[in-house]
Amino acid sequence: MAKKKAHIPPNVTPLAIGIDIGGTGTKYGIVDRDGNVLFSAEMSTKKHKTVNTFIDELHQVVSEVIDKAGGVGRIKGIGVGAPNGNYYTGTIEYAPNLPWEGVIPLAKLLSDKFQLPVTLTNDANAAAIGEMMYGAAKGMKDFIMITLGTGVGSGIVANGHLIYGHDGFAGELGHTIVIPDGRIHAGTGKKGSLESYASATGVRLTAIEFLEKSKKPSLLKKVPAEMLDSKAVYDAAIEGDELAKEIFNYTGRILGIALANAVMTTSPEAIILFGGLTKSGDFILKPTRDSMEDNLIQVFQNKVRILISHLKEAHAAILGASALVWERE
Amino acid sequence: MAKKKAHIPPNVTPLAIGIDIGGTGTKYGIVDRDGNVLFSAEMSTKKHKTVNTFIDELHQVVSEVIDKAGGVGRIKGIGVGAPNGNYYTGTIEYAPNLPWEGVIPLAKLLSDKFQLPVTLTNDANAAAIGEMMYGAAKGMKDFIMITLGTGVGSGIVANGHLIYGHDGFAGELGHTIVIPDGRIHAGTGKKGSLESYASATGVRLTAIEFLEKSKKPSLLKKVPAEMLDSKAVYDAAIEGDELAKEIFNYTGRILGIALANAVMTTSPEAIILFGGLTKSGDFILKPTRDSMEDNLIQVFQNKVRILISHLKEAHAAILGASALVWERE
Repeated sequence: MAKKKAHIPPNVTPLAIGIDIGGTGTKYGIVDRDGNVLFSAEMSTKKHKTVNTFIDELHQVVSEVIDKAGGVGRIKGIGVGAPNGNYYTGTIEYAPNLPWEGVIPLAKLLSDKFQLPVTLTNDANAAAIGEMMYGAAKGMKDFIMITLGTGVGSGIVANGHLIYGHDGFAGELGHTIVIPDGRIHAGTGKKGSLESYASATGVRLTAIEFLEKSKKPSLLKKVPAEMLDSKAVYDAAIEGDELAKEIFNYTGRILGIALANAVMTTSPEAIILFGGLTKSGDFILKPTRDSMEDNLIQVFQNKVRILISHLKEAHAAILGASALVWERE
Repeated sequence: MAKKKAHIPPNVTPLAIGIDIGGTGTKYGIVDRDGNVLFSAEMSTKKHKTVNTFIDELHQVVSEVIDKAGGVGRIKGIGVGAPNGNYYTGTIEYAPNLPWEGVIPLAKLLSDKFQLPVTLTNDANAAAIGEMMYGAAKGMKDFIMITLGTGVGSGIVANGHLIYGHDGFAGELGHTIVIPDGRIHAGTGKKGSLESYASATGVRLTAIEFLEKSKKPSLLKKVPAEMLDSKAVYDAAIEGDELAKEIFNYTGRILGIALANAVMTTSPEAIILFGGLTKSGDFILKPTRDSMEDNLIQVFQNKVRILISHLKEAHAAILGASALVWERE
């Protein structure tokens, strides 16, 4: 992390900038200490072939919201969540979903440009800190945050602190192997990881597989392959479509095994789920919970709550990233 | 944990009592702060149908070594490692390998009897603290200890602290599911856990299965089923026995997946292995390491050392348990 000092006059309420870098878009906003998002917007990540043009545009658009918020004098720092973001080094390393290869010194690039302190961590870690400060994990000392989106990310809090691990990369539950020799993950080349089943892509692949091998009638047969997301499967399930329910059962069973393994590792009070898949409600939550309980040994059973994040989706990533600024104090 | 104060005169070097309760035997000893085991011995756990007679005998035999060590005035406290031992409550809960059922208030029973402070944790957690104070993990802040014995235990250290989790039961990697719908675990009823493959019983079951289905000649065909342990398999492997090597490859592959999953969860600097299986050297370590690396995503590859505990086996459990006394300060 880049260490610079922000100088805020004592009579001004400090603000934080939260930036969430995703493979497609980058969300940014200005947040106060109570978690109110004062301004927020989004720009494209994808169109930037180099990180330098990305930083230039980000600097321009963020400077505009800084001006709206009363100028750089009120800004205490910048928090950034990004895939494969490293808290210790401030670098993004080999992120398969970002357009830039290798090791990117993102915190340094941003802090040079903005002349503000920058704290970087992986996007799911940022989400976990956001939940701990403003969301479903308020007051908890041991919990696991799992983001079910394009990928599957996680942030693990134990003894009240995020586990960064020896090298800053801890908390990659999405890449843990649930089905040895299972489905290949296009990004990592590994077989049978949680992400290859419980991500948006994973659910789509499951739907395609189930549609190919099943002779049952299904509303999903009319949906084009590229539109087969958890929303489409949910829409079918709510109409009573059996195949759609089986897709959720299958996904939930695998997610539940991964959750059971995580519980037996760090024994959290709760698991907070966030992301598109959670909108399918009990279609996905019931098989997930059942499978988790089935795979837990007795001392862990019926203890761990599975909670859905109640932070506004458009703001959660920005909130989590901004929380890094206060957490650093 | 039971909180009592020990009164040690200022000119006397304090000592700790380490007790390791296993399903068959209970080891106990007196240890100084540098990790020297002054006295040690073992008594039967198994023969005690009730915990009360167990405590009575333990009090008697431990009192004898306390007298040899200069009397109770030198003893700072008692540390106990036990299966399903809970650090927060001082209880042993539903331990499938112990003769006593339900919830046993072990720390209280012991501290009432000895009038000394007692700290209890699970046996593998105690081993992890022992390694951190005296062994292969000295100076490490993020590591995982795995004990490969009758069962498979683990203790996870992150940010320099053992992860106890919300309820004190964290670190049960032995019960994480590696092969969904895999081999059933006789103690827990769960299918495909690490312990059902990488424990002493697990290796024996694999050997029996491989011998049944293989037509290859093997030295192991002459070994009675109850003698088929990792030592017997090792003895055959060193003679060039192909089936014996396959048993280790199979076990190592499964252990490696579990290690990869643990690494992607807490990102440790090293994994310390302890127990009978490690004596099979590269026969088990090479397939374990290969499988771990194969299942890790790029950011974790070629970073995590797999180390073998170099603490004397007879003393490691006592040392680890005694370390709880100093760790508590």
